[in-house]
Amino acid sequence: MATASDLPVSPLAPERFPQLPTVRGIAATTHSLGLYKGKVRDDLLVIHFPEGAAAGGIFTKSSTRSDDVDRCRAALQAGGGRARVLVVNTGNSNAFTGAAGIAKNDATVASAVKMSGCGQHEVFISATGVIGEPMPPHVISGGVETVWSKLGAPDWEKVANCIRTTDTFAKAAGETVDLNRRNVGIIGVAKGSGMIQPNMATTLNYMFTDANLGPKVCQALIAKLGDITYNCITVDSDTSTSDTLLFFATGAAGGEQIDNPDDPRLAGFIEAMHRVLKDLATQIVRDGEGASKIIEITVEGAASDASAKVIASSIANSPLVKTAIAAGDANWGRVVMAIGKTSEPVERDQLALWFGDHLVAKDGARAASYSEAVATKAVSGQEVFIRVNLGLGQGKSTVWTCDFTDGYVKINGAYRS
Amino acid sequence: MATASDLPVSPLAPERFPQLPTVRGIAATTHSLGLYKGKVRDDLLVIHFPEGAAAGGIFTKSSTRSDDVDRCRAALQAGGGRARVLVVNTGNSNAFTGAAGIAKNDATVASAVKMSGCGQHEVFISATGVIGEPMPPHVISGGVETVWSKLGAPDWEKVANCIRTTDTFAKAAGETVDLNRRNVGIIGVAKGSGMIQPNMATTLNYMFTDANLGPKVCQALIAKLGDITYNCITVDSDTSTSDTLLFFATGAAGGEQIDNPDDPRLAGFIEAMHRVLKDLATQIVRDGEGASKIIEITVEGAASDASAKVIASSIANSPLVKTAIAAGDANWGRVVMAIGKTSEPVERDQLALWFGDHLVAKDGARAASYSEAVATKAVSGQEVFIRVNLGLGQGKSTVWTCDFTDGYVKINGAYRS
Repeated sequence: MATASDLPVSPLAPERFPQLPTVRGIAATTHSLGLYKGKVRDDLLVIHFPEGAAAGGIFTKSSTRSDDVDRCRAALQAGGGRARVLVVNTGNSNAFTGAAGIAKNDATVASAVKMSGCGQHEVFISATGVIGEPMPPHVISGGVETVWSKLGAPDWEKVANCIRTTDTFAKAAGETVDLNRRNVGIIGVAKGSGMIQPNMATTLNYMFTDANLGPKVCQALIAKLGDITYNCITVDSDTSTSDTLLFFATGAAGGEQIDNPDDPRLAGFIEAMHRVLKDLATQIVRDGEGASKIIEITVEGAASDASAKVIASSIANSPLVKTAIAAGDANWGRVVMAIGKTSEPVERDQLALWFGDHLVAKDGARAASYSEAVATKAVSGQEVFIRVNLGLGQGKSTVWTCDFTDGYVKINGAYRS
Repeated sequence: MATASDLPVSPLAPERFPQLPTVRGIAATTHSLGLYKGKVRDDLLVIHFPEGAAAGGIFTKSSTRSDDVDRCRAALQAGGGRARVLVVNTGNSNAFTGAAGIAKNDATVASAVKMSGCGQHEVFISATGVIGEPMPPHVISGGVETVWSKLGAPDWEKVANCIRTTDTFAKAAGETVDLNRRNVGIIGVAKGSGMIQPNMATTLNYMFTDANLGPKVCQALIAKLGDITYNCITVDSDTSTSDTLLFFATGAAGGEQIDNPDDPRLAGFIEAMHRVLKDLATQIVRDGEGASKIIEITVEGAASDASAKVIASSIANSPLVKTAIAAGDANWGRVVMAIGKTSEPVERDQLALWFGDHLVAKDGARAASYSEAVATKAVSGQEVFIRVNLGLGQGKSTVWTCDFTDGYVKINGAYRS
């Protein structure tokens, strides 16, 4: 199996791992269970909220999703949105593993309950790696018990490294923000590089804050902000069986608990959380397998926001658009093709299309002012902006993707063998 | 612009151009208008039915489709399904060319009407090549007038070569069949290699017979058989703005005209036409850009045929499935992922999956009898068969696709520049 260290770092990676704020109320540790044969790397992450945390989450809509995903969703419902332990392993996704996968998760939850003294619905588990490969039931649970005494102040760079699979860099983002006259921290860590078309969150993503938020607020914020960040990225149109985006609020910053998602005091916090989520989501695109460019696609003037998103995603997932941009070819006709291939409302002779700030097409034909040189320049850098106005209504959506190079084919032809 | 001759012939190509039967009542010629700069190749095809022909057709559903497509559809409706002239050019798709594209087509139809003496709704036109590049209005129409005197017995290999763009081989198929105690011929020619996800037929495809069929029969047969052949292939999930599948019946074989699509005398003809269409459609997949393997995907036990087709297409379009098969990796977990990512009814713990004849998964987990060696062998040849049984109902669909190699990226990064 290819792992992070086999691959060169994406040219679109941030220069360095970010400075992160303090988020109180979290203990963490990482450990190597040897799940990557022949490699020394951490593959088990355990996070403990000693005083508990409020929790919310959104998950893959895949109908072949893993038991881990089902269990997180069930825990949120049955436990009223309270969390005490998060266990994540890489090296094996535990998806499509039937009874063996359920046994592994039963054992993991039991160990977390035993060590922390929490209820079983306060344990959240995730796994990522190969699909369909059953594991012995006690590998992960044994790991939880072994590392429990090592829990301490989180080393976020180790945490972010531990959850990587084919990622070429560790992904994290954070901000400090004023909430109700207290400084609170927000930190997110993520993994993801391929099998990225979030139909809900993508891959594994965890957000933490010490703000004092109730479970309803956690769920409302992660659902709303996840939908316009994680659910708007795509690398290859493939949807993982394990996608998980969890949000934990420890409340350790103190102050009155906020239980209403519409509380006006949340405004600044929501903006900061949105920025952190967008930062993380676009880091995943920047690490798209084989990516050499990040592409931001905005569709406006659509019949609805949902319609705009379908059309933006059609452009973002078109292999012909993505290969042209990889080659620095301003092949805008392929964007027109991708706009046309959905069944959403589109009037050919009303749409307008820009590459960067350059108008390339309008009124059903190439723009009179079109310049091949200017259009080519707009698709030549590491950041490409495509904008479409359909001229039909107020619907708008922005989607992020990467270009499509032979690196993707090489990485994914080699992944499992 | 890349053209056929730049690319090595697909390893999946038939050994030779097929022997084709005689179809009476057709005159044809091909010609070079110089639309491919610096290359000597035919780029204009004119076909004349001196005694006329009944016609039917299906077309791209793209909302950014070309005026050529709109005109064919309008001609079928306004002209009652009668045809006299077919004009096809390569080198420029005339899609998204606005008023210039309409003027070009007006001129082309006028020239065909002038030369043949037919009505304007008896003229059918198609074009393929770059999108959005306006042409001078009289290039094609002038060509029609120039070549009219050269019309004669069709050289089908020249016809099939003339309509190629990135195709690495000329595509044709044919059969002779008994209809109502007369021998009639069926011939199809096609082009297509990329931008292939038929939402209706794909690219340019023309079927000819000298059977004496009425327009209603032509339309019914091409719609029904096109839907289970052309509409079941995909190379890259991208839908062309020019897809056209036209069917012409000259009636030159004589005999009573058949006007009822349900006429039992048509049974053998329908079977033969189905074989010809399937042959042509899978030739397009065999010429998929960069293809090294053809993959037949059958989904059965689905809630409906339509649901089966959505799921089969999801597998067929998954970059992760296609890159794994390119590498000869029996990564069946990715097939499970692709089954799960649609919103169609799927019960994870009821589905079964075969690679070739080998059962790889059932009841929500890997099959007990699974053999990595046997599964690998099943994806190692040039023809790969994937079968899924969802265990839910009677719905069934078969879809054909090719694998995904770095050849696709190379071809499409280079196409326009």
